[in-house]
Amino acid sequence: MIDKTIIEASNDDRDAGLRADYDALGEQLDRRGIDIAAIKAKVAGFGIAVPSWGVGTGGTRFARFPGPGEPRHVFDKLDDCGVIHRLTAATPRVSLHIPWDDAAPADLLAKAEETGLGFDAMNSNTFSDQPGQALSYKFGSLSHTDPAVRAQAVEHNLACIELGQAIGSKALTVWVGDGSNFPGQAHFARQFDRYLDAARRIYAGLPEDWRLLTEHKMYEPAFYSTVVQDWGTNYLIATELGERAQCLVDLGHHAPNVNIEMIVARLARFGKLGGFHFNDSKYGDDDLDTGSIDPYRLFLVFNELVEADGPGFEPMHMLDQSHNVTDPIESLMVSATEVQRAYAQALLVDRAALAGFQEGNDALMATATLKRAFRTDVEPILAMARLEAGAAIDPVAAFRASGYRARVAEARPAVAGGSGGIV
Amino acid sequence: MIDKTIIEASNDDRDAGLRADYDALGEQLDRRGIDIAAIKAKVAGFGIAVPSWGVGTGGTRFARFPGPGEPRHVFDKLDDCGVIHRLTAATPRVSLHIPWDDAAPADLLAKAEETGLGFDAMNSNTFSDQPGQALSYKFGSLSHTDPAVRAQAVEHNLACIELGQAIGSKALTVWVGDGSNFPGQAHFARQFDRYLDAARRIYAGLPEDWRLLTEHKMYEPAFYSTVVQDWGTNYLIATELGERAQCLVDLGHHAPNVNIEMIVARLARFGKLGGFHFNDSKYGDDDLDTGSIDPYRLFLVFNELVEADGPGFEPMHMLDQSHNVTDPIESLMVSATEVQRAYAQALLVDRAALAGFQEGNDALMATATLKRAFRTDVEPILAMARLEAGAAIDPVAAFRASGYRARVAEARPAVAGGSGGIV
Amino acid sequence: MIDKTIIEASNDDRDAGLRADYDALGEQLDRRGIDIAAIKAKVAGFGIAVPSWGVGTGGTRFARFPGPGEPRHVFDKLDDCGVIHRLTAATPRVSLHIPWDDAAPADLLAKAEETGLGFDAMNSNTFSDQPGQALSYKFGSLSHTDPAVRAQAVEHNLACIELGQAIGSKALTVWVGDGSNFPGQAHFARQFDRYLDAARRIYAGLPEDWRLLTEHKMYEPAFYSTVVQDWGTNYLIATELGERAQCLVDLGHHAPNVNIEMIVARLARFGKLGGFHFNDSKYGDDDLDTGSIDPYRLFLVFNELVEADGPGFEPMHMLDQSHNVTDPIESLMVSATEVQRAYAQALLVDRAALAGFQEGNDALMATATLKRAFRTDVEPILAMARLEAGAAIDPVAAFRASGYRARVAEARPAVAGGSGGIV
Amino acid sequence: MIDKTIIEASNDDRDAGLRADYDALGEQLDRRGIDIAAIKAKVAGFGIAVPSWGVGTGGTRFARFPGPGEPRHVFDKLDDCGVIHRLTAATPRVSLHIPWDDAAPADLLAKAEETGLGFDAMNSNTFSDQPGQALSYKFGSLSHTDPAVRAQAVEHNLACIELGQAIGSKALTVWVGDGSNFPGQAHFARQFDRYLDAARRIYAGLPEDWRLLTEHKMYEPAFYSTVVQDWGTNYLIATELGERAQCLVDLGHHAPNVNIEMIVARLARFGKLGGFHFNDSKYGDDDLDTGSIDPYRLFLVFNELVEADGPGFEPMHMLDQSHNVTDPIESLMVSATEVQRAYAQALLVDRAALAGFQEGNDALMATATLKRAFRTDVEPILAMARLEAGAAIDPVAAFRASGYRARVAEARPAVAGGSGGIV
Repeated sequence: MIDKTIIEASNDDRDAGLRADYDALGEQLDRRGIDIAAIKAKVAGFGIAVPSWGVGTGGTRFARFPGPGEPRHVFDKLDDCGVIHRLTAATPRVSLHIPWDDAAPADLLAKAEETGLGFDAMNSNTFSDQPGQALSYKFGSLSHTDPAVRAQAVEHNLACIELGQAIGSKALTVWVGDGSNFPGQAHFARQFDRYLDAARRIYAGLPEDWRLLTEHKMYEPAFYSTVVQDWGTNYLIATELGERAQCLVDLGHHAPNVNIEMIVARLARFGKLGGFHFNDSKYGDDDLDTGSIDPYRLFLVFNELVEADGPGFEPMHMLDQSHNVTDPIESLMVSATEVQRAYAQALLVDRAALAGFQEGNDALMATATLKRAFRTDVEPILAMARLEAGAAIDPVAAFRASGYRARVAEARPAVAGGSGGIV
Repeated sequence: MIDKTIIEASNDDRDAGLRADYDALGEQLDRRGIDIAAIKAKVAGFGIAVPSWGVGTGGTRFARFPGPGEPRHVFDKLDDCGVIHRLTAATPRVSLHIPWDDAAPADLLAKAEETGLGFDAMNSNTFSDQPGQALSYKFGSLSHTDPAVRAQAVEHNLACIELGQAIGSKALTVWVGDGSNFPGQAHFARQFDRYLDAARRIYAGLPEDWRLLTEHKMYEPAFYSTVVQDWGTNYLIATELGERAQCLVDLGHHAPNVNIEMIVARLARFGKLGGFHFNDSKYGDDDLDTGSIDPYRLFLVFNELVEADGPGFEPMHMLDQSHNVTDPIESLMVSATEVQRAYAQALLVDRAALAGFQEGNDALMATATLKRAFRTDVEPILAMARLEAGAAIDPVAAFRASGYRARVAEARPAVAGGSGGIV
Repeated sequence: MIDKTIIEASNDDRDAGLRADYDALGEQLDRRGIDIAAIKAKVAGFGIAVPSWGVGTGGTRFARFPGPGEPRHVFDKLDDCGVIHRLTAATPRVSLHIPWDDAAPADLLAKAEETGLGFDAMNSNTFSDQPGQALSYKFGSLSHTDPAVRAQAVEHNLACIELGQAIGSKALTVWVGDGSNFPGQAHFARQFDRYLDAARRIYAGLPEDWRLLTEHKMYEPAFYSTVVQDWGTNYLIATELGERAQCLVDLGHHAPNVNIEMIVARLARFGKLGGFHFNDSKYGDDDLDTGSIDPYRLFLVFNELVEADGPGFEPMHMLDQSHNVTDPIESLMVSATEVQRAYAQALLVDRAALAGFQEGNDALMATATLKRAFRTDVEPILAMARLEAGAAIDPVAAFRASGYRARVAEARPAVAGGSGGIV
Repeated sequence: MIDKTIIEASNDDRDAGLRADYDALGEQLDRRGIDIAAIKAKVAGFGIAVPSWGVGTGGTRFARFPGPGEPRHVFDKLDDCGVIHRLTAATPRVSLHIPWDDAAPADLLAKAEETGLGFDAMNSNTFSDQPGQALSYKFGSLSHTDPAVRAQAVEHNLACIELGQAIGSKALTVWVGDGSNFPGQAHFARQFDRYLDAARRIYAGLPEDWRLLTEHKMYEPAFYSTVVQDWGTNYLIATELGERAQCLVDLGHHAPNVNIEMIVARLARFGKLGGFHFNDSKYGDDDLDTGSIDPYRLFLVFNELVEADGPGFEPMHMLDQSHNVTDPIESLMVSATEVQRAYAQALLVDRAALAGFQEGNDALMATATLKRAFRTDVEPILAMARLEAGAAIDPVAAFRASGYRARVAEARPAVAGGSGGIV
């Protein structure tokens, strides 16, 4: 897919500069009592899952503007995901979305082996109707008033688990758009009871070594109320279901101004932080590239993760973005790097000093301690980890040099843009 | 379409109750020094334009769930709009969206005559790509960096004017999704200059008796910046272009918590209030039914309109909603009624008393004066105006009794739901 | 305080109009299958607690502009609260704030008897320092890093309970401003653990027939993080503490756009809805008069309360507002009335029809069912309930006619406005 | 105030590390084609004004918790401001607030010379009542319904100009809290006309070489509407008044999610960007330390300022923060440094490359170009600029070592905390 010589040529141009920067940073960190090699090792071991749907060009309700070489099916998607991991060494696993990615397990496993990838959490889809589907999700799925619709949605989730087991996944992520568009449309309590009942049936089908991750979202596609609208409801669900049920936090699914890192801390403290959908947002669930709008917020989330780290703390890390104006492969590479960057910065925090400032209510020095870590340019650490793993110092440059996009554009037919006819 | 006997039968069941309520309200208003007949006459003369695209089921980027009898083309849409006006006597005009509604002017005029409708503002579309379109709007239209794309967008707008002239429209509404998804993607000043330059070329093609209405929106489809992001920029545009350029206010296009009625007052005061896209919203540009979430806000907007009323003050009133879970015809009927309701309530405000309380800083009595008007149940006034115009006392009940939806569902083929493959 | 003849004279002017409106409404409701007398009886039995601090003029961090006759102490406040109940018959209880209202129990009970009032929930204050206080709450109270500060805060709450027991209160409301102004200032998990530990000690001192109501708030006075920031954390607290711990919902303490009525439904469903602080807001914790900004939202909250009503469901209802530009007595009278109005409207909802529409996913008719109840002008019901209780048909008019404010302004010395010197 | 030896001792400990970091950064920048000395020179010449009111501990409407050594009057404040400039070499001017800082011009000038400071924009205060003031601003100032109140407010502003002229200021900043707390309380159009009329009278008294900076704010202290609520209204004002009237942008005065850097670009493009009040915020007008919550947003603002730089572009830069939990001197030092940091980072942007990416719609590389500049740790540049100016490499450390706070705490009497009695 991406020839080794391409990567080496790209790296050769950048090697000397990288080594100079890495050494200078190493010296500075040494003065701060930090071993750069230890940080690099942790970063190298930190993998982010890529969403299979992320390698296609996204869109809005107004339009979608596909680019060249749009993937046609899960195998094209896995090829693209393989490129991302090849160039970044940061994304060892792919998260599938069913039924979009439905295929024979053996074929999926073969392709995974070919592309050097594994499978992360499975994602079910009961927020849109598929061709041939018996009952519609127009008015909900797991919380629908009609028990037959709920049963269909439960069955679909169980099928996702079954496929996932066959390909080595260990988690099911459930996000539903269920809610209402009008005051009075839904009975809040009964609707939630129906959701809980259906979720319990999915949980009952969960293998012993799996986790069920439920995802909350404030709004969209429902615009008045959403059944799993915030972490409070999500926590209720995870508590009602059982130990292997945990909450998934998508960074773009909260009300304006909400302190997300605090939610992360709360869920971690009560054993219910299951994982993340990383992205960034300025207005709503914008699904922009991770760290592109508020990189300090991303760092503060990772500050909590490093703080909470310990035995049994194993949140899953996944990207979930919509790439409307960039090459999806490039965006995912950069975003995976941004996640690693925030992690590396969080590792640099002087936690003993921080704890002291917190205990002594020295707010200024406490926040300065975080800022010092954040403003450290850790790019040399990330790049060196990539270089040592045989990946690219500058993944985007290497990708552009590789001609991959042009090659797949020849093999994959052009896709027309669409408009939902919706204003 | 809707047989007169259906309406009459529906009205007969409700006539006595309506008359009792109307009389009781008349007596109460009389005690308050208000002539109910005068209010009724004003309401009867107040028409709201219906968007042609509103009669189809809307959707989100996640899914669309069509209903039975989806309109296939502009002529089906005009049939549906005719039903709305037939039952409410409140929506005498339709606003077309080009190219979705492109057709021969003579055919449009014939259908309009058949359905008893006229044409309101024309709407251009440069936010999605159409089949066969030479250049893509992926990176903008009127503000695109490529002059050829800008020229194409200008041409399209001029074509909309040309068609509009042929069918009796008097305004062009321009909304563009141009903006950016990443900090740095667009140069704010140059992008706006390009927009202004292109808009000037459209304005140059505007007939003397037409208005150009530009519409601002905070975000979506662009998620970092939008060229015409708020009323401030919209006002700049209208001022730069000239006297016949005015601002269009969509109630769902503002930042959270913004005082929209104050923006209405500012634009009215400076002669730049061109019109409205009515809808309601709880989170973003939710395009919910008008008045369904915050009816008092709608009233406060109308309070400003009644206050600003006078010679030369002629804002255009249009609905702009996305009907995802209701029958679009029913939603548009109810929404038109909600607009009339807010207007009627605003007419009831004792303005002399209000002015006195304002001058004397009697905040409590000033706001009580508005509340007294708002909490008056003006439904009997609206219903009586409908009855006297030959429309339905209860439009939804009459519509359901008519069997119209089932009839068109037979004639119009079923449409499959869609999913953008976007999470 | 307010002479009976004043009220009677005021009522005489309005009696005929009220009876005409009441009769007309009664007939209309009868047609809708509703017994107006039953609604009136429920409204008459619905009391709202008044906050003692609400009868003084409020302010902002920029300034406070006192009015004439500001209450000097709890006994003046009880006089003012007595006037409110005398004229509205809607506010039988007062909620005290300690130490502001500290006094000998016997004196409080005597004054309560004189003014015809009882005592609602007690409110502790650990968000500001009092003269002579040993330790400062600058960096927190129940969650402070210093155990001595936490102990002081716990002691204060236990003292509030003790005083409350002596005067017949049955609940303690705890709101703390604890949080942080800078990322890193506080350790989220440890801070919350300290809060829980301190709260447990208060709970341990709670009499068997009392409730502990904890109140969440998104922000202010802490501007980066707040310990009890939302209903999720509040629910965690109530669950950790025990059965008599419940959550208090202040309508102004949520993130922008949040669906508050849904939170109410969730807490009610899980047995943790303890009560309300009613007010209204447009931007943040504005503490504006209840129902003054979004009356439909208030109605939707009451729609949930009526829906959840049943054995053991006994949320407490209290006003909590800051009256900066109105006469506090007038604002509290109007606000109590607005609470009753929302309650009366919610009682009018045709719940059988609503349930049917919900079950059938008839979103349009479901929401229309709510709207029909909301737009009914129930003022005649409220006024008649007042009249029959010997209170005023128009409380504000009667209050202004009484000359009460001028009288207390003579007895109570004028207060100078203040400025915190904060921009 | 701060002995030279203190600074030197503090610097000696840090000198070697700084030089190593500076050299390494210089080499890296050299590889990127940037001359580190040129950047350092620009930073050294970039001064930020300090608000006199910022050196006192701030507070909220709930409480204020003063620290030791609170300044008693403008001369104490100037001492504190002198320390800030002494240690940072970044804050050569102080912005006074009248009447809080009223004093004889000669005394102010003498103190300024003693502390090495000059005077920035003057600030008037018509949002709170002062002892002895004839008329109250409870219901507004420049837009009050009573012409006598408006005249008083105009007079006060003219007096501020007069004092400012005597001490070398060149601008007047006008912020008013005028607005309303209830729908209907104020007549929007008339209120704004009154504001404009009063503002014109102030502008008429403006010296030829002065600027009038008007400041908008979404809300607080008014909680329903504010006269100068956003940049749109602010732009209208500046346009109506004349060429020397410009808009002042406070980073915390906008609606949630608003793109502030775009507003900056708009005002700059149309010649109306007058200056800034720097601070940071998470929820509302939190007045937190600059860059403490969202440092990337601050960088994006400076990216616009560097982009717009050119002849005649001279926005004024001022801090405006409320220091509730930190030592105000420390917070102001750090905040001034954060402003310089954002400026230095913005100077590092490769503008030729950026323009190329923008022109070619290469969104990914455009934003990467900004990010590369942002993530560069420019602290060595800032610190070296300070060192070369005789200030401190680490201002906070030097300040703590100096014992200044303890010294002034002995001279200045302790202040009791306050509570407004407002919940």
